[in-house]
Amino acid sequence: MRIALAQINPVVGDLQGNADKILACCQKAHALSADLAVFPELSLIGYPPHDLLELSSFVENEQRTRAALARAAPSGLGLILGGVAFNRNRPGKPLHNAAFLYEGGSLLGVAHKALLPTYDVFDERRHFEPGTNRAVIPWRGRALGVHVCEDLWNTVSEAQALYDTDPVAELAAAGADLFINICASPFAVGKRASRETLIAHAAGTHGLPYVFVNQVGANTELIFDGSSCVYGPHGKALLRLQRFEEDLAVWDTADTALEPPVPVNDPIASLHDALIAGIRDYFHKTGIFSKVMIGLSGGIDSAVTCALAVRALGRDRVVGVSMPSQYSSAGSISDAEALANILGLRLHAIPISSLVDAFEDALSEVLAGTEADVTEENIQARARGTILMALSNKFGYLLLSTGNKSEISVGYATLYGDMNGGLCILGDVLKGQVYRLAHYINRGGEIIPENTITKPPSAELRPGQTDQDSLPPYDVLDEVLRRYIEAQQDLREITEATGFDKAVVSKILRQVDRSEYKRRQAAPCLRVTAKAFGDGRRLPVVMRKP
Amino acid sequence: MRIALAQINPVVGDLQGNADKILACCQKAHALSADLAVFPELSLIGYPPHDLLELSSFVENEQRTRAALARAAPSGLGLILGGVAFNRNRPGKPLHNAAFLYEGGSLLGVAHKALLPTYDVFDERRHFEPGTNRAVIPWRGRALGVHVCEDLWNTVSEAQALYDTDPVAELAAAGADLFINICASPFAVGKRASRETLIAHAAGTHGLPYVFVNQVGANTELIFDGSSCVYGPHGKALLRLQRFEEDLAVWDTADTALEPPVPVNDPIASLHDALIAGIRDYFHKTGIFSKVMIGLSGGIDSAVTCALAVRALGRDRVVGVSMPSQYSSAGSISDAEALANILGLRLHAIPISSLVDAFEDALSEVLAGTEADVTEENIQARARGTILMALSNKFGYLLLSTGNKSEISVGYATLYGDMNGGLCILGDVLKGQVYRLAHYINRGGEIIPENTITKPPSAELRPGQTDQDSLPPYDVLDEVLRRYIEAQQDLREITEATGFDKAVVSKILRQVDRSEYKRRQAAPCLRVTAKAFGDGRRLPVVMRKP
Repeated sequence: MRIALAQINPVVGDLQGNADKILACCQKAHALSADLAVFPELSLIGYPPHDLLELSSFVENEQRTRAALARAAPSGLGLILGGVAFNRNRPGKPLHNAAFLYEGGSLLGVAHKALLPTYDVFDERRHFEPGTNRAVIPWRGRALGVHVCEDLWNTVSEAQALYDTDPVAELAAAGADLFINICASPFAVGKRASRETLIAHAAGTHGLPYVFVNQVGANTELIFDGSSCVYGPHGKALLRLQRFEEDLAVWDTADTALEPPVPVNDPIASLHDALIAGIRDYFHKTGIFSKVMIGLSGGIDSAVTCALAVRALGRDRVVGVSMPSQYSSAGSISDAEALANILGLRLHAIPISSLVDAFEDALSEVLAGTEADVTEENIQARARGTILMALSNKFGYLLLSTGNKSEISVGYATLYGDMNGGLCILGDVLKGQVYRLAHYINRGGEIIPENTITKPPSAELRPGQTDQDSLPPYDVLDEVLRRYIEAQQDLREITEATGFDKAVVSKILRQVDRSEYKRRQAAPCLRVTAKAFGDGRRLPVVMRKP
Repeated sequence: MRIALAQINPVVGDLQGNADKILACCQKAHALSADLAVFPELSLIGYPPHDLLELSSFVENEQRTRAALARAAPSGLGLILGGVAFNRNRPGKPLHNAAFLYEGGSLLGVAHKALLPTYDVFDERRHFEPGTNRAVIPWRGRALGVHVCEDLWNTVSEAQALYDTDPVAELAAAGADLFINICASPFAVGKRASRETLIAHAAGTHGLPYVFVNQVGANTELIFDGSSCVYGPHGKALLRLQRFEEDLAVWDTADTALEPPVPVNDPIASLHDALIAGIRDYFHKTGIFSKVMIGLSGGIDSAVTCALAVRALGRDRVVGVSMPSQYSSAGSISDAEALANILGLRLHAIPISSLVDAFEDALSEVLAGTEADVTEENIQARARGTILMALSNKFGYLLLSTGNKSEISVGYATLYGDMNGGLCILGDVLKGQVYRLAHYINRGGEIIPENTITKPPSAELRPGQTDQDSLPPYDVLDEVLRRYIEAQQDLREITEATGFDKAVVSKILRQVDRSEYKRRQAAPCLRVTAKAFGDGRRLPVVMRKP
């Protein structure tokens, strides 16, 4: 049997557009003599649909469009599509997350997702009822063990296991001779390897081939790497599809001795490629922006964001804006110019000193007799934010915000100022990684100006300011944040593990907690770790922690 | 048996502070000769804790603090407390949401919440495993049918039922002679009545008294009305506690013929009181602000927000700021002044014309040759937003944002401008209801100036502008929004039900969908309907709908 793995990049909600894309893949698969074409989870809907699933007309439309697609597909080709099925056994949630086998327009089998993730960014119990019956789907002499995404995931250590069933084992027991998993598993650094470990384990344990088809592309903050693959009954890879790109490849079940190249495991390279996919898809899938725009301070964050945007969209679709104030160093202005020159960008220079003066004039009476503090620094950031939004409004530019995870964590950013933007590129990237990204971007020659990388980081909101006036060294800060936010350790655990000064760690944790209100109003940020700000991390704004 | 219903207002996460509050209630209950004191769901944690429950040290701390509290309580008093229990039967989520009966420091019984809501603002499957064993807790000669919140909720019509078990019926079958429900059920207009219908049904169906203890007070966007009550075996109310206020009352199980007054069912009065509780608790529970501040435009939204803030916090804690531009009418300025005079407020007047000029100067080169459009309007709104944030930064004022649900729905608001603020008061209140609130506020005499109520609503961002230049009449808009957002109807359903012009309705729906990105960055808004913006309504930013 020849199986086409169709790794598509859907637009969430765009039923007809996604169906058209699927149909084109079907035709390509048929031309490659495939028997069966397999598509990712919720193929026509795209993942994650969130509360679109609460609109009954949308759900009905998906079912109609899917049935029409199945009828339009080449008649000799089997199709496995993800979609929603009604739950006929109420009580319970109204829908199942399901995989459907079609041939010649007829529905030949359905498998309901059994394991519904309700952690991090996932809320599947919100809309779906778990499937309870596991049965293989007999087709063309084979017994297909079709299942959906998380159904593979019940192979973690027993102490942490979330689920009391293992659908893969149940399908094997029911006589499956081939596993097929349709998935929408988002990227995080290191995720592909851990996912393939699960696949290898499932294939090897049951001695059966395993076909894994993942969604690719970014939808708002979630980036899907694709990385679809086939593993053989010996638990080794037979085929791997592209990362971060649409791809289609055919595997013949008779080919059990293939040896695909082992993918290079470079966390910074994959981070780089993921962020580019995130920018590219936000821009193209919204489809309403003429260009993207970045405020260029001469600093490392905006330079890296800008270089990534140029890589994602091409220099003609990227605009830089430099907005020097009285506190901007000559070096910063020239660093922004150098970056724009190297990348071949249009750079607007709009000085803000007169705006800052105008705000100070307007406020002189009400602020009379007060000392300068963060207020005046924020006025500069908000004047810049307003300039950028004016250009966005006038010219249809998508403003990219440039804050990194380290500063967003501790609130070292101005709400309604430098936090402005439709998408935050580095919001899940710690400062140390931003530097590593800069070196990676420069691997073939200088793109990020050397001076931008080597000078001490500064917000340049008052004379001679550097980040380390307000923050601990970034290597300390990043290590604490990694433990507090990603590993969810507490003060005692962090100080014991790191030996860092308790007062320093304690201050960082308080800053993180107190900045929750800023993050609640932040732009969506591209998720590249297992715990990003946004949907996957939900904390009350009003709270007091012990 | 004398049972104290202790309707407390906890601060989320403040384990020791909440424990102190509970202990004071215990002493009061003991002084009133109570046998048993009953507290709301997650008594020491407060609801909703969200991902605080993922911090193992927090969970352990809750258990320690609860055990110490139980030991400190008067020895002759039984206590029913909400808290978290470890799930000893992994696999599954690590915790149960539970009710605990203590006496003399000893744990005498535990009931795990069986029905875990995963809709609207609720994500309980994220942290909890459902309880599977229903057993009564025998105590002082009675059989207590203790259960938690949603466990009451499985009495809706069969077609809509979410759950396959009815814990209340199971407790009755197990021999309960008294139901006790500990709850954290948030307010929405009309919710108290529907909740009491469920309680009456449960009590009457099983012929048993029903004690219902609800949380009170607001936590970020969720407002809890309290409205704890006792129903008798005849299915009628015996006792009702205060709305929106902490309260403690004792019911003697021998008192089966009480007839508490029937609460007045005035949606606008309850909306008014709910919003006041929301402002009051955000301000006091954060505890870091000196005052609240409102930008007063002379319009209805800011006037109503301001009047509510004065009611919640007192005039000395409220500051008004008037920021006229060249497009502000003389009437608007005098209306803001009139409001401040009536309320006895401090009003700062900070004209923004020179700021708008400074922005236009700074942008003159880059915007040369373009026509005036929404860009210039947004500059005014963002100049005002920056002024307000400067005062917030300098003086520690909490900025309240004043947008209503109608305009936030269709994006008739400036991101980083008038949307600025820590809390949005009217974000779940449609424009028509804002007018009704104004009349209610004026019921005893003019507080909202008559001219503010009668003039045509306008953003005053260009000469002679009114809202109806850009929007359909508010009665049409509100009706469409109620159906689209709250009832989740689609274009066809709305036009068929209302007879409104299809093009008008279609444009509104597109505006709602296209404004998702603004709402993603909006301040938390107080939830007063069954479907508010925020946690309870989750839609992708990047999507295309059919």
